[in-house]
Amino acid sequence: MNIRLFFTPAGINEEQINGRTAVVIDILRATTVAAVALSNGAREIIPVATLGDAASLREKLEKSTVQLGGEREGKKVEGFDLGNSPFEYGPESVESKTIILATTNGSAALLKGAEAQQCLSCAFVNISATMKKILEIGEDVAIICAGNKGGFSLEDALCGGMLVDKLGSLGGPVELDNDATHVAQALYHRHKEDLQGALRQSDHGKYLFSLGFDKDIEFCAQEDTLSICPVWQSGRLTLPE
Amino acid sequence: MNIRLFFTPAGINEEQINGRTAVVIDILRATTVAAVALSNGAREIIPVATLGDAASLREKLEKSTVQLGGEREGKKVEGFDLGNSPFEYGPESVESKTIILATTNGSAALLKGAEAQQCLSCAFVNISATMKKILEIGEDVAIICAGNKGGFSLEDALCGGMLVDKLGSLGGPVELDNDATHVAQALYHRHKEDLQGALRQSDHGKYLFSLGFDKDIEFCAQEDTLSICPVWQSGRLTLPE
Repeated sequence: MNIRLFFTPAGINEEQINGRTAVVIDILRATTVAAVALSNGAREIIPVATLGDAASLREKLEKSTVQLGGEREGKKVEGFDLGNSPFEYGPESVESKTIILATTNGSAALLKGAEAQQCLSCAFVNISATMKKILEIGEDVAIICAGNKGGFSLEDALCGGMLVDKLGSLGGPVELDNDATHVAQALYHRHKEDLQGALRQSDHGKYLFSLGFDKDIEFCAQEDTLSICPVWQSGRLTLPE
Repeated sequence: MNIRLFFTPAGINEEQINGRTAVVIDILRATTVAAVALSNGAREIIPVATLGDAASLREKLEKSTVQLGGEREGKKVEGFDLGNSPFEYGPESVESKTIILATTNGSAALLKGAEAQQCLSCAFVNISATMKKILEIGEDVAIICAGNKGGFSLEDALCGGMLVDKLGSLGGPVELDNDATHVAQALYHRHKEDLQGALRQSDHGKYLFSLGFDKDIEFCAQEDTLSICPVWQSGRLTLPE
């Protein structure tokens, strides 16, 4: 299996992800939220690039079945039902609902990943379930870190590196395709004894802390608390039957 | 001094580099070539984004004073005078000449850096001279790695990390502003005993090797063989009086 990793979705062209399983990672917090919401009974998650797309999609859907979620600058958007904290995506809010998700980085990364053969949504909370799904599919992998506004973010690279490491140690022989794949794995080795500490020290971790989302960081740093892997199907993330 | 680092120029907005000294790095090979050419007596280097820009700029200049240099896919462009190997930029080719430089990654990174307060061109071959110039200017720093086609490249990150490290150890107290700055410094520590080996193992190093540019890699991995720092002035790189 050949693994290729991108620190941001910016600049990825079709050829680079063609025929691969894309694995999208936005630890703080979109792909953590996606795993939580589907785990708590949401029917599907539809990522959208802009707030305008979110509003116009809500118009088209049966209102009682939809929750509009997401953030700008880490904060819940005015008029939205939910922000971007995993604690807002409990069963009482999401069960049987369609979640329209408009986040700054994660939504764009998911839409990029959707251009690949297959697309999975990964976070620390569901990393083993993601690995299992990757091995089931059996294709080469393109890990797409969401990053932060076009730039690098530590937490996504760490999770990408952990996935590379796990695939290499448990999934059989792997070939690391590009510089970023090697660097992400080395970063993971450097921080694996204290992932939560690394998240707290990261740019976005510090920013979320300043907004009062300390518990979110703790939550998002947990490994394998959920055993599901969201899969992209026809324009949305869902749990296949 | 606050230091901020970007693994690629993609997505950098004005606000992020405003008021800073931008330091552009494209080890393999544009900023190495820039240092070599100016060191060998070139009058100025004008980076351009496209081959079309290069051709139309040549039309406007006195032909006998101009050399058109650069690459696409690492190879010299048809109709160009020079490719992108430092060995092509000897005094016999460049003395007193204006070099129009059209490279895939380096030119774009330099044009981005030019949007900052000040802009310097840095490589391993002139890293101490660059550091000296940064300290002379005395402003905060934005290190812009050219990367490779919108993605991360190891060799530029390593040089960026080395510059961070040098500024911290020799230039007085520094504040590392973002995740990428920390990661680049750690990468440098990991590879500092064998920079040439790291360059050879990098994506672009392996590609250049496949094209027969083995000696270029060796050349570009040398530290401080040149004591000049190209500075951006009025749309071109030059050596200030």
